[in-house]
Amino acid sequence: MSAPKYPARQHWAKVAKNLGLSEGLVYLKGDVLKERHDTDVELTFRQESNFYYLTGFAEHDAHVLFDLKTGKMTLLPHRLAEDHIVWMGMPPTLAQLQAEFDTDNITWSADLVKAIQESGASTLYVLSTKDVPEGLAGLTINDELLKDAVHTARMYKSEYEIEAMRRINHISSNAHVALMKAAKKSATETELDALFRYETGRFGASAQAYNPIVGVGSNAATLHYQRNSAPFNNNYDQLCLVDAGAELGCYASDITRTFPLNGKYSGDAKTIYEIVLQMQNAVLAALKPGVQWEDMHRLAGKIAVEGLQKAGVLKSEFSVEEMLAKHVDGVFFPHGLGHMIGLDVHDVGGYPKGVARIQAPGLQYLRMRRALEPSFVVTVEPGVYFVQFILDEAKKDAELAKFMNWDVVERFAKVGGVRIEDCVVITENGIDNLTIAPKEIAEIEAIMASA
Amino acid sequence: MSAPKYPARQHWAKVAKNLGLSEGLVYLKGDVLKERHDTDVELTFRQESNFYYLTGFAEHDAHVLFDLKTGKMTLLPHRLAEDHIVWMGMPPTLAQLQAEFDTDNITWSADLVKAIQESGASTLYVLSTKDVPEGLAGLTINDELLKDAVHTARMYKSEYEIEAMRRINHISSNAHVALMKAAKKSATETELDALFRYETGRFGASAQAYNPIVGVGSNAATLHYQRNSAPFNNNYDQLCLVDAGAELGCYASDITRTFPLNGKYSGDAKTIYEIVLQMQNAVLAALKPGVQWEDMHRLAGKIAVEGLQKAGVLKSEFSVEEMLAKHVDGVFFPHGLGHMIGLDVHDVGGYPKGVARIQAPGLQYLRMRRALEPSFVVTVEPGVYFVQFILDEAKKDAELAKFMNWDVVERFAKVGGVRIEDCVVITENGIDNLTIAPKEIAEIEAIMASA
Repeated sequence: MSAPKYPARQHWAKVAKNLGLSEGLVYLKGDVLKERHDTDVELTFRQESNFYYLTGFAEHDAHVLFDLKTGKMTLLPHRLAEDHIVWMGMPPTLAQLQAEFDTDNITWSADLVKAIQESGASTLYVLSTKDVPEGLAGLTINDELLKDAVHTARMYKSEYEIEAMRRINHISSNAHVALMKAAKKSATETELDALFRYETGRFGASAQAYNPIVGVGSNAATLHYQRNSAPFNNNYDQLCLVDAGAELGCYASDITRTFPLNGKYSGDAKTIYEIVLQMQNAVLAALKPGVQWEDMHRLAGKIAVEGLQKAGVLKSEFSVEEMLAKHVDGVFFPHGLGHMIGLDVHDVGGYPKGVARIQAPGLQYLRMRRALEPSFVVTVEPGVYFVQFILDEAKKDAELAKFMNWDVVERFAKVGGVRIEDCVVITENGIDNLTIAPKEIAEIEAIMASA
Repeated sequence: MSAPKYPARQHWAKVAKNLGLSEGLVYLKGDVLKERHDTDVELTFRQESNFYYLTGFAEHDAHVLFDLKTGKMTLLPHRLAEDHIVWMGMPPTLAQLQAEFDTDNITWSADLVKAIQESGASTLYVLSTKDVPEGLAGLTINDELLKDAVHTARMYKSEYEIEAMRRINHISSNAHVALMKAAKKSATETELDALFRYETGRFGASAQAYNPIVGVGSNAATLHYQRNSAPFNNNYDQLCLVDAGAELGCYASDITRTFPLNGKYSGDAKTIYEIVLQMQNAVLAALKPGVQWEDMHRLAGKIAVEGLQKAGVLKSEFSVEEMLAKHVDGVFFPHGLGHMIGLDVHDVGGYPKGVARIQAPGLQYLRMRRALEPSFVVTVEPGVYFVQFILDEAKKDAELAKFMNWDVVERFAKVGGVRIEDCVVITENGIDNLTIAPKEIAEIEAIMASA
């Protein structure tokens, strides 16, 4: 039994329905092969996401057409020049491609202009006028409608897409476990970064959905830490935050785990970890269709404040409500709760038309503000951090500074930061968690003890 | 003792000498941070090579100026916006950067136009007019001279550069050995590809100088094979060709080794391997200043034809000279012998001005045609392949077809291809081989037996 084909025509049907037009031709241009600067170093090719969504075709210099009147799609792959065969190998024939991909018609990309003209369509719908091929005459070009139609379709993941994301979530989850097992014996963030790429790459996921973050101790408090180069030295009692997810077949995963290098959660680090785990569990339990995303962010923020008050970081004489009203949660949880994920790690569809960002600490960085619907896939990634720059600003702000026990804050600063992140599908009644990397303290400690 | 600084000012002195001008300002623009298509997925940043050569600065959105009258350089790094600090961490100060980099002056990139205007220069020398910043008035822009001056300088590697290339050659060489050791226990090309990236990445070489080639059996006969996805199945008696080299500090390595998956060279595969090793050893022994590169290619081609005749692939009744006159070597050795290597894997300076490609099989693909000089770094990468497409063409060409014992050719086709590639520095008397991965049959078999 062969693997199911990428459901390109099913995706086109959704886009056509969103467009709601009875005729016209839709055209998307696949990405071209690029070289590094003024050299012949080929950059690793990655298909443009909208094009992939409507073709499943990951090769460069291809095109696709969809006739709104007939409902038929035509894939136009690039034909390898004969003098390239020695270098690149024998390319597939059109018949082989037709058998492999879900398309009504197939023809070489050299026929693009002819195919457009012969369609008889009077309007060409494109994502961008930059894409319009040269040599077309008498066609109206419309770049106003297509992007919304495609992005709206992409918000609702098809069954194929959910299974693709489950697969890459499993690969990335297992890679996180491999890092937990290797931590004690590793000497640098660099080694763990390389190991994550290896543990995903050897299963065919040769690209990362984003540049991994591997930060030990206070490095975990740099939210998009990218250096991943610090030696562990004598810091094996510190937490290591790993935010990493590979991509497979152009589908992203995005997972964060935070574990102690020596395998044992303790002291203040354990306290913060438990707060973040509680934040995530509360959100995961509350997720279902109809829930407004920013309310989930606020729920996580509330638990953070409650936990930090209990831990003595925030003073006990103020009420949680009072502190939330001043956005004290934004000091320790300064980023958004999560985002749509799919063909891109920060996937399309986060904000409905006309909805603006909330201007408040933390909330302003939300990449999504809408009510959840079945078949959305989102990340849930609460965190608590001690970011020196933010703490310094808070200290200067009398309205915020008064809530803090600054000596306790200073003690906790050594924890750096904790984030826990899963990818979940919104179902009819709740969620389907695609991420299987363990996150309970006992589970992680057991894994690390057995290594 | 801290590591030596990247010798930017030494490189500028060479460029200034090549320009031979007494005044004017030279300006280079560093690369900017880019995102994938219409998304916020940051692409891994890699500095533009000419800019790196003249700064050693690997961060994005920087600039550099060099005043030809005063002989002073000014580095202009990009200053992180304050609201990015939470995400990216505290950036270095100008004083810290000045201490780290080899530059006369340093100022933030926001001062670029001011710095150009205050220099009092009347001409701005650039690589491309596209680079010229907006807001400049009354300056003559010259894009005719700089590129040659920089590229000529880059041909002659400085001591720092040679040591940088030795370092990455050692890392990549050891990764090749790791692949030899892992081969028997591996199941797919994918695993070996991922392992190479891991074994270089864990030492800080997180980027590859080019996309690795890992091809088993007939896949090795696709010269730029990139799929690296075939399962080994029952092919452990086949050769595996691995052409892979990581980069470190922007310096490239480029190494090929070809070994049997089961650890034992035998039969036709051993015969071809011995021929290619002989080709490489003969060239390495002949290399020294003054030697013309295409003569080295021809030397390798001659040994290939001699070896293939002895092996029975080519008929014994023809003389080697007769066969070389018809370019029969180009059938089995269809690519160039090697190329300059440095900041780019196919480095600048291969062809002097006015020198054209030789229009003959194999030779036409030479990336270099010049006499060797001390401090050039080149790859030496002879190969023998059985490329179906080329063999089919040769069969149709009576002038070529007559030389072949076609039944023997067919038997050897199973070998796929063999390539052996090292990076070497041209010294006053010969070479300094930067590549330390073993290539003698006995050495490789011993390594693989011990695994």
